[in-house]
Amino acid sequence: MIEFSVDYIAEILDGEVQGDGSIRVNQLSKIEDAQPGTISFLSNPKYEAAIYTTKASAVIVNKDFQPRKPLQVTLIRVKDPYLGFTSLLEEYHKQVSMQKTGVEEPSYAADDATIGDHVYRGAFSYIGQGCEIGHNVKIYPHVYIGDHVKIGDDTILYSGVKLYPGTEIGSACVIHAGAVIGSDGFGFAPQADGSYRAIPQMGNVVIGNRVSIGANTTIDCATLASTVIKDGVKLDNLIQIAHNVEIGENTVVAAQSGISGSTKVGKGCVIAGQVGIIGHLQIGNYVKVAAQSGIGKSLPDHTIEMGSPSFEQKKYLRAYAAFKNLPELVARINELEKKILNLPSSEDK
Amino acid sequence: MIEFSVDYIAEILDGEVQGDGSIRVNQLSKIEDAQPGTISFLSNPKYEAAIYTTKASAVIVNKDFQPRKPLQVTLIRVKDPYLGFTSLLEEYHKQVSMQKTGVEEPSYAADDATIGDHVYRGAFSYIGQGCEIGHNVKIYPHVYIGDHVKIGDDTILYSGVKLYPGTEIGSACVIHAGAVIGSDGFGFAPQADGSYRAIPQMGNVVIGNRVSIGANTTIDCATLASTVIKDGVKLDNLIQIAHNVEIGENTVVAAQSGISGSTKVGKGCVIAGQVGIIGHLQIGNYVKVAAQSGIGKSLPDHTIEMGSPSFEQKKYLRAYAAFKNLPELVARINELEKKILNLPSSEDK
Amino acid sequence: MIEFSVDYIAEILDGEVQGDGSIRVNQLSKIEDAQPGTISFLSNPKYEAAIYTTKASAVIVNKDFQPRKPLQVTLIRVKDPYLGFTSLLEEYHKQVSMQKTGVEEPSYAADDATIGDHVYRGAFSYIGQGCEIGHNVKIYPHVYIGDHVKIGDDTILYSGVKLYPGTEIGSACVIHAGAVIGSDGFGFAPQADGSYRAIPQMGNVVIGNRVSIGANTTIDCATLASTVIKDGVKLDNLIQIAHNVEIGENTVVAAQSGISGSTKVGKGCVIAGQVGIIGHLQIGNYVKVAAQSGIGKSLPDHTIEMGSPSFEQKKYLRAYAAFKNLPELVARINELEKKILNLPSSEDK
Repeated sequence: MIEFSVDYIAEILDGEVQGDGSIRVNQLSKIEDAQPGTISFLSNPKYEAAIYTTKASAVIVNKDFQPRKPLQVTLIRVKDPYLGFTSLLEEYHKQVSMQKTGVEEPSYAADDATIGDHVYRGAFSYIGQGCEIGHNVKIYPHVYIGDHVKIGDDTILYSGVKLYPGTEIGSACVIHAGAVIGSDGFGFAPQADGSYRAIPQMGNVVIGNRVSIGANTTIDCATLASTVIKDGVKLDNLIQIAHNVEIGENTVVAAQSGISGSTKVGKGCVIAGQVGIIGHLQIGNYVKVAAQSGIGKSLPDHTIEMGSPSFEQKKYLRAYAAFKNLPELVARINELEKKILNLPSSEDK
Repeated sequence: MIEFSVDYIAEILDGEVQGDGSIRVNQLSKIEDAQPGTISFLSNPKYEAAIYTTKASAVIVNKDFQPRKPLQVTLIRVKDPYLGFTSLLEEYHKQVSMQKTGVEEPSYAADDATIGDHVYRGAFSYIGQGCEIGHNVKIYPHVYIGDHVKIGDDTILYSGVKLYPGTEIGSACVIHAGAVIGSDGFGFAPQADGSYRAIPQMGNVVIGNRVSIGANTTIDCATLASTVIKDGVKLDNLIQIAHNVEIGENTVVAAQSGISGSTKVGKGCVIAGQVGIIGHLQIGNYVKVAAQSGIGKSLPDHTIEMGSPSFEQKKYLRAYAAFKNLPELVARINELEKKILNLPSSEDK
Repeated sequence: MIEFSVDYIAEILDGEVQGDGSIRVNQLSKIEDAQPGTISFLSNPKYEAAIYTTKASAVIVNKDFQPRKPLQVTLIRVKDPYLGFTSLLEEYHKQVSMQKTGVEEPSYAADDATIGDHVYRGAFSYIGQGCEIGHNVKIYPHVYIGDHVKIGDDTILYSGVKLYPGTEIGSACVIHAGAVIGSDGFGFAPQADGSYRAIPQMGNVVIGNRVSIGANTTIDCATLASTVIKDGVKLDNLIQIAHNVEIGENTVVAAQSGISGSTKVGKGCVIAGQVGIIGHLQIGNYVKVAAQSGIGKSLPDHTIEMGSPSFEQKKYLRAYAAFKNLPELVARINELEKKILNLPSSEDK
């Protein structure tokens, strides 16, 4: 792990050290779980008691913090300890992810690949013919970059990412381990004898900037043209994106959801986990879909959906509340039928 | 990308060139999205307008096509432009996938592995002891082929496919990146102390001919004997096939579905996405299952199922329509109860 | 495959050979499917007929077994044939998995990594800086072990397992191909412009002893501190475990289930396949969840849940039975309304 001195951290945070600033920390932790060598923070005064017993080497506190007992731990006083801690996390993260650089051997790159400056190429990484790799790209071990792939600056490909030939990825993307981008769409033409013939999948996948793609997520290439993931989209783990799908800017999709072929999803949508969306739909902007829902129809902007097949969430919740009481409802109907039977019929009159 | 001259394409398609046949194209595209260097097609006369503005370098048209305005683009006249385009896609696909051949270094193959002619072995691919690899097999980078695996002719294993020892795969199969075949079945015997002991999984996976397996799909080996995927089966991405499952000829399974241990699925079935099938069932031939359904019982041939747990789709859709109106139904029952209360009881008589 | 003589097997099983003990077998099989060169067992007398026609080279039988016809197959007589066969499976398994040892080249290990005795390091495996690898660990080809990872004795990492930096794994674990451990949690802070900023994920994943993790399963690291999988947990394939989740001892989770961020699951739970559990819940001990359920609330010990959103399984099954008959229920209500209309109203009195 990377080590920082407390003095160095105080400098990053524009804070003031109280205690020994020369000690070094190599991990961040919650104040109650902290071990020697870690740095933590105290933001909520409710948890003040923890600072007198913590094993942390240093704690980030509010600049006005007045300890009520003697303290053994080094303090860094800042304006906003939580924000300070978060900034520190980011700094740490940047340093950790940026520290990897250079080429580990053995690795493979085709002679005609173009590779930018300060690129990390892990051992056993593969770069195919005609690839164009931007600056500061991090290519972890076992990454496969097929022929004629383009990758923008500052993008990180974690271990085992697989990019099929022709894939295009923007800048500042993060693609997690085992994600597969550009695999063949699931297109098969039924034949007279009951078998299926594969429809050639000739398109590619085009991914914008600042897109995040989770571990073992799969994105199929288009039959023709491109499957498109626009700027700022965040995809969680184990998601399936089928051929010719388009996902609009800043849409977020949680783990294990699937979007079928040729469906267009708008921008700013929030799709919860284990959702399924069938093919050839138009999903509007700012649509929200509850977990495990199944979307079977196109949806206008700002819709909030639930159920499988889904409908408006408010209506779904009312229907589901009634569903839970169905046995009681059946009992009431039985009772009504009995009462009706005991009533004088109109014929009796 | 591979480039073809328009003259060469016309020859493949048995068509006639009108315009400059020496220009070269390297991509196929829709007529409205086309860029210079691409070839497209005009099949439906409804879209004729696009041919006068397209940026494509060449367009495949009907042999009787009569332009109503002057044309800048090169034409290839054929009997059926759509079929022509599809054939071209296939030809292109074949050339692209077949062009990879030879051995990229470093790669690994055990001394006693048998490897056919014209096999592509990508960098960092691994072939274990006693393997038998057919002719024209394409083994992309980072493929792992465990000991004693058998692979038929013309099969393609994309990057990062993992085949456990003893796996058998037929000919002309396509297995996409990250698929795992032969992992241990999920079998654990509960012990007196609440822990579980793994039941050794000693069988293998046997896959027929012309099977397609999607990216990051997992197929577990059998406890004993074999998990069997028969000829012509098409599995989409992120599917789970458990130990001792059998899937019949030409059955199609969409993404993220799962089939539990020892279930037998017949031939010609169509299983939609995110379906779950529990273990030890017999699913007949030509069964259809709607997306997100949960199959909890064996099914005869030609059944069409929906819901979780599933029943006949027609009945499910009727029940679900009533479910959507449940709050209204409850209101009607409330109303009935009120009316009954206001009626003279039979005791009043 | 590994071959054993029947005499050697009899010794392992403490059994007695009848027939030719020098013949060798290299596979285990069901008695009805057996081929020459395999060994099988006869436990249930109901299946005795099979022993007279089996092609197996040897069969394990009860020590008191009295054949009613002449036998061609070699017998091993033991006290409990099923237990004998199971022991043999285990012995075989141990021998197969333990036979891999040594280092295949090319492989990669950082200079400062600590590696125990009898470790197998497959070709193209990667061990990062500061790693501590125990004794008898099996690292298959294409495994990625990021910096500062710790792995206990006797753990097996199958091909393509990816461990992010800082992951800690106990002893005697089995992690199947393509599993990803330690990927970033899915945490994004919404910004004023509709985009999202990634919240740095600085924690790690800590996995206990005797844990089994399925193929292509993903486990995210904690935002701070650790995502924790305790001793004896069994996770099937394609499961998603989000950041800061904790799973208690000996809990079993079936394929394609997902557990969202910060949820704590107790010990001894049984979660069926394709289940979703939302974030920040407390799931008690010995909880059971039916397949495809969606858990939306915390659950006390010993709860049995079903449905999405779930409630008590018994109640769910009753409500679902009524749901299946909803169209009939609607018809009954229509009938009641008609009858009420035909009744003399109280005003008529």
